[in-house]
Amino acid sequence: MTEHKKFEEVTISSELIFKGKIISLQVDQVKLPNGGTASREIVKHPGAVAVIALLGDRMIVVEQYRKPLEKSQVEIPAGKLDSGEEPLRAALRELEEETGYRTDNIRLVSSFSTSPGFADEIIHLYIAEDLVKGTANPDEDEFLDCEAITLEQAQQYMREGRISDAKTIMAVYAWQLYKLTGQI
Amino acid sequence: MTEHKKFEEVTISSELIFKGKIISLQVDQVKLPNGGTASREIVKHPGAVAVIALLGDRMIVVEQYRKPLEKSQVEIPAGKLDSGEEPLRAALRELEEETGYRTDNIRLVSSFSTSPGFADEIIHLYIAEDLVKGTANPDEDEFLDCEAITLEQAQQYMREGRISDAKTIMAVYAWQLYKLTGQI
Repeated sequence: MTEHKKFEEVTISSELIFKGKIISLQVDQVKLPNGGTASREIVKHPGAVAVIALLGDRMIVVEQYRKPLEKSQVEIPAGKLDSGEEPLRAALRELEEETGYRTDNIRLVSSFSTSPGFADEIIHLYIAEDLVKGTANPDEDEFLDCEAITLEQAQQYMREGRISDAKTIMAVYAWQLYKLTGQI
Repeated sequence: MTEHKKFEEVTISSELIFKGKIISLQVDQVKLPNGGTASREIVKHPGAVAVIALLGDRMIVVEQYRKPLEKSQVEIPAGKLDSGEEPLRAALRELEEETGYRTDNIRLVSSFSTSPGFADEIIHLYIAEDLVKGTANPDEDEFLDCEAITLEQAQQYMREGRISDAKTIMAVYAWQLYKLTGQI
């Protein structure tokens, strides 16, 4: 047993419950390490990208309505991977579609799971600098405002709850560490 | 229209697809700001807590198998809210169940959504210090190892992918900022 399979839960059976446009849902019956069984409710997601886009002393954020939360939120630019799309290409595409900015200076910060208890979604988080202006072009069912904010504004938005999603809070922390240490 | 309803998507109809033990799934038809319509696939979750538990120069982490990712992961102690449970109480309960530690010194760092595009899950993230030893008591279908790691180990685990979920990466960043600035 390799380290990354410790306490493995082996699939006994898997039932597809729903296949939607973006997510699907399955329920797996699994065998536990002690020989018992349990069911696991699992959301399958195509994966996503997000970008810490720095413009001098400011970071680009977008405000949009988030139906699951029933409120609008200020977040870093992000979006789902298209089928077969390479994450770096998706990051550059979403950055330009949502904010109108392009860059050649972009690198991966981390790839992380958002909700490992019930979903397989992975977000690939990039940092982009040396932005140049292109043309914004959101998806047809996507409505958003774009803004460049300072670190102090980002921290204020966090206190006010206007920024309150994991990837954007992580981005603000990473940005602050980058300013303090020169590394991220 | 208040600021937090900007670009509101008004529900036209909502269909419950699945009601499970932990999550449920609904598909909403919504009216967009431009008058068009769209469907939104929404996972409902009871909410969760997570704890940055500091023991001197170390942070307590637990390793467990995450079926949606098909691998074991090192994460900060965390768990779902029981029905009607107050988040602070849940944080203290999960901390003791998973790690055996108790404390009176605990405070909220932030409450954040994990996947605002498709889920309503909120994680309430706490920081706990001045830990004292009690008795670990995991749930019956929960198998985990507990370990106290330094910041350097945590960063190494992130590079190796053993730590790769949003709340734990956020916790490592927050811990590093706390060490650098004395604040979080």
